[in-house]
Amino acid sequence: MGEAYAQESYSKFNRHKERGTYDAETIHNIINTTSVLHVSFTDPASPFPVVLPMIGQVGQYAEDTEPHLYLHGYVSSRIMKVTSSSSNNDNSEDEPQGLPMTVAATKVDGFVLALSPFSHSYNYRSALVFGHATLLPSSDDPETLWAMELITDSVVPERWQHTRVPPTPSELTSTRIIKLRIASATAKVRVGPASSERRDLKDPDVAGKIWQGVVPVWEHFGEPVTTIEAKAAGGGVAVVPEHVRRFVEAENANAEEYAVGAATATEKQGKEEEGEEED
Amino acid sequence: MGEAYAQESYSKFNRHKERGTYDAETIHNIINTTSVLHVSFTDPASPFPVVLPMIGQVGQYAEDTEPHLYLHGYVSSRIMKVTSSSSNNDNSEDEPQGLPMTVAATKVDGFVLALSPFSHSYNYRSALVFGHATLLPSSDDPETLWAMELITDSVVPERWQHTRVPPTPSELTSTRIIKLRIASATAKVRVGPASSERRDLKDPDVAGKIWQGVVPVWEHFGEPVTTIEAKAAGGGVAVVPEHVRRFVEAENANAEEYAVGAATATEKQGKEEEGEEED
Repeated sequence: MGEAYAQESYSKFNRHKERGTYDAETIHNIINTTSVLHVSFTDPASPFPVVLPMIGQVGQYAEDTEPHLYLHGYVSSRIMKVTSSSSNNDNSEDEPQGLPMTVAATKVDGFVLALSPFSHSYNYRSALVFGHATLLPSSDDPETLWAMELITDSVVPERWQHTRVPPTPSELTSTRIIKLRIASATAKVRVGPASSERRDLKDPDVAGKIWQGVVPVWEHFGEPVTTIEAKAAGGGVAVVPEHVRRFVEAENANAEEYAVGAATATEKQGKEEEGEEED
Repeated sequence: MGEAYAQESYSKFNRHKERGTYDAETIHNIINTTSVLHVSFTDPASPFPVVLPMIGQVGQYAEDTEPHLYLHGYVSSRIMKVTSSSSNNDNSEDEPQGLPMTVAATKVDGFVLALSPFSHSYNYRSALVFGHATLLPSSDDPETLWAMELITDSVVPERWQHTRVPPTPSELTSTRIIKLRIASATAKVRVGPASSERRDLKDPDVAGKIWQGVVPVWEHFGEPVTTIEAKAAGGGVAVVPEHVRRFVEAENANAEEYAVGAATATEKQGKEEEGEEED
């Protein structure tokens, strides 16, 4: 990409600007490697924002001139009803069409333990995507099918081709894809060791007695568990396939390498202020 | 506890009711064991919902008659400004005071791979808390200090007592605690093996050729990395303390046990419909 999203009033950084970025590739990577996205929108019928955990993926379809965020949902759920009614609300040419949504992805990479609790932090990668959501057609639409394959393979690479496809008509009816046109997006990344206040570091009763360091943390995948159903024709498949084994090994190696590396990595730019709290 | 939150129009389950619960203990456990919560609220100045990753914990303070959700924030950030102005908006006795917020916590426990991509799912634990947020005082307030210790020890047990406390006046000024009065809350839990459509299970070309199973996944903590700063008095502490070691060992053992167990566990009640998609 090499491209960046525009800074808007709602997407500007108020704190730790040096950790923030509008870089599209960084943002897409965080979204695309996070197992669960938190999708937030307002529903006039609810006094509280609606938040739904969903699976999603940024991708660029065919002749589209920019990448969109595709979200996987179920046709009867609230998100679909609100998106659907919002999509029809096209009486103004200036108003962007679709339901305004904020999609969040956060990966925790380490617990950063400092001398004072107030200097504690996380190493993390966090992305926010702001945009307008519309529903793709449920029928045998090429973009819908493309997005379904994109999202399936984002969970386990090559999974789509190793399953029973194409989808049946009833599968296509019950599952819908939301396409989010991205208005702005941001990411924030913290890496590195604990950073305590100078006052505490100079005090032998503090720095000489309290441990500071980082506990790296990552999503670890265990040994795949074959779950054959008794009624399966031919007794089912007992051997874990290569594409699943490759996925587990690659994920675990990459995730550990990133989290352990982040514990001692250096932040790109200077810190805003020593010993300051994270947001 | 043994108590349950009230079902409200905004907190009722539309799908997979058998996976949903209003049980307070289940909901609190999910919130309290999730490293990052996603906090959503509306800001009149923004066209999109505000979503912030925050650290939080449910707890019951002193003479309070019910548990609240405490969130850790920074005084100058947007959440504080909106909460603060909303707290003052007490001109109606009937209107609940505070800023309406939805707080989400989601833990992924396994990737559930079925015969068709549309029968794929996650094993997960997901909680939503709806409530009204107010700011606790920044001064030397007993509840503020209690909540700071609660939240610090929720990250690593016993951490508070092993750090430089009590907080300095400037630490207390820069860090604020949000107290959320819970209006309603829900949780959804999926455990168990893949569940494919009967049609696919009966077909030898499908069930006899495609692997179905669960890849368990959990947050794994690595070897703690000591990060001594050169300027630390006395050279700093090089030995990882016992409370950190205990935390890493206990977390890893519990998390693995839960995720692997979930792969073959049986859901409490019958499924809504076979081979149906998750939401």
